[in-house]
Amino acid sequence: MEKSFNFKLKEVCQSKNSVLCIGLDIDADRMSNDFSPTLENLESFSKDVVDCTVDFCPVYKINLGFYERYGSAGVSWMERLLVHIQHRSIVIADGKRGDIGNTAKQYAKSLFDTFEFDAATVSPYMGRDSITPFAEYPEKGAFILCLTSNSGSEDFQFLKSGDRYIYQTVADLVKDLNLHNNLGLVVGATHPNRMRELRSRTENLSWLIPGVGAQGGDLASSVNIGNANGTALINVSRGILYSGDSTQDSIRESALKYTKTIQENL
Amino acid sequence: MEKSFNFKLKEVCQSKNSVLCIGLDIDADRMSNDFSPTLENLESFSKDVVDCTVDFCPVYKINLGFYERYGSAGVSWMERLLVHIQHRSIVIADGKRGDIGNTAKQYAKSLFDTFEFDAATVSPYMGRDSITPFAEYPEKGAFILCLTSNSGSEDFQFLKSGDRYIYQTVADLVKDLNLHNNLGLVVGATHPNRMRELRSRTENLSWLIPGVGAQGGDLASSVNIGNANGTALINVSRGILYSGDSTQDSIRESALKYTKTIQENL
Repeated sequence: MEKSFNFKLKEVCQSKNSVLCIGLDIDADRMSNDFSPTLENLESFSKDVVDCTVDFCPVYKINLGFYERYGSAGVSWMERLLVHIQHRSIVIADGKRGDIGNTAKQYAKSLFDTFEFDAATVSPYMGRDSITPFAEYPEKGAFILCLTSNSGSEDFQFLKSGDRYIYQTVADLVKDLNLHNNLGLVVGATHPNRMRELRSRTENLSWLIPGVGAQGGDLASSVNIGNANGTALINVSRGILYSGDSTQDSIRESALKYTKTIQENL
Repeated sequence: MEKSFNFKLKEVCQSKNSVLCIGLDIDADRMSNDFSPTLENLESFSKDVVDCTVDFCPVYKINLGFYERYGSAGVSWMERLLVHIQHRSIVIADGKRGDIGNTAKQYAKSLFDTFEFDAATVSPYMGRDSITPFAEYPEKGAFILCLTSNSGSEDFQFLKSGDRYIYQTVADLVKDLNLHNNLGLVVGATHPNRMRELRSRTENLSWLIPGVGAQGGDLASSVNIGNANGTALINVSRGILYSGDSTQDSIRESALKYTKTIQENL
């Protein structure tokens, strides 16, 4: 029997002694002025980022929007990037898909069978039948949006119904659906107090924590709170990709710096 | 100045005297046994559906999951299908994207600039900054998930916070963001009583109504309630694509039957 995703994730993170997740949000608009943003150059840059970090980075996250922006040519680039990573690290498809059962099944097939991602982010608004088609792949992971790091998170996630906030209701549902030990939550680093309560509520669910760095979340406390009760990945995108002059040296240096802080707080 | 999306949608629907939206959820698993489900054949089928309905169908909806399932090859098929439709009808990208501002901007670019869709469905869970990048294209539409037609809709949408259900809070926010008369809501046909109240609450917002047919929603009352106060599109997918023997004749016949019922209730 194949190992469950959460078990596999824990193993990989332990073997590399890190929970760093590098977000491959390759953005032509953020490259330095002397970079010519052709698709070919962007692809080559994305592979460079992997090459100079894969020996110590346990997880990459591919933000689908940044590839789909270029149509099928961008999706082909994403396919080649996945081949390049070659399962040397875990790769999360950050597409925040979420649809009725019949369509959610197509998305799960797309991300898990066709592209061969190891995990995906999923949006919960449509309820349990939008989550279960992903949950039915025990060896693949699904991180459900719960408490996000953006300002708009207040619009719905922080509404209270009965004695629970909406994001707590999401967390409780995901815990119920975690029959195969393969589910997790997206929990923004920008809400430390809420994170503490949520961590004790969601024992064993893996966490994906965005919002450290560019969005202002605190790295040390995120590592600390998130990993108290399960694996919590710390996603960093802009803070690594566009650090210094974006050469392999400065990317590696920045990623190693994040790794060191993570290790000090694990 | 280009016309706003909701104005353009109304014009197109009036000129064809219909609010039918054919959902192009081309599903290899639902084709008849003698159909060989190669990508080439599926593409040819999708174009046949358009060819035999485009003279009277005002709107098509492309469900991205059914194309992404085939990776970049499926996305290329979708690109060619869009070229084939050639702006003869309005085309909605049903991808239910929803992400923080910076990424939502990439998805809006992808769907509106690269693929040249006329509108997109958007998921509200992450709040207003996941919606505004779409809203900032006045001539393009965004239908925000509000009250969906699936069973899981009860998990979050029907929770009450203060005096409003979550789906009502979504509707009110979208109404506030509709500065360019280009926003709409996804409202499932399976909740007639809730639809009535929601329609009076969301004057001028366009509606996209799935759930008629396969999911059991009532066609006549959906047309009637939905169009009382703005344009409401009735989406039918399986009920048309897989009707009879799925030849152009039976697809056209089925689509015309839906059109007739729509016209009787407009």
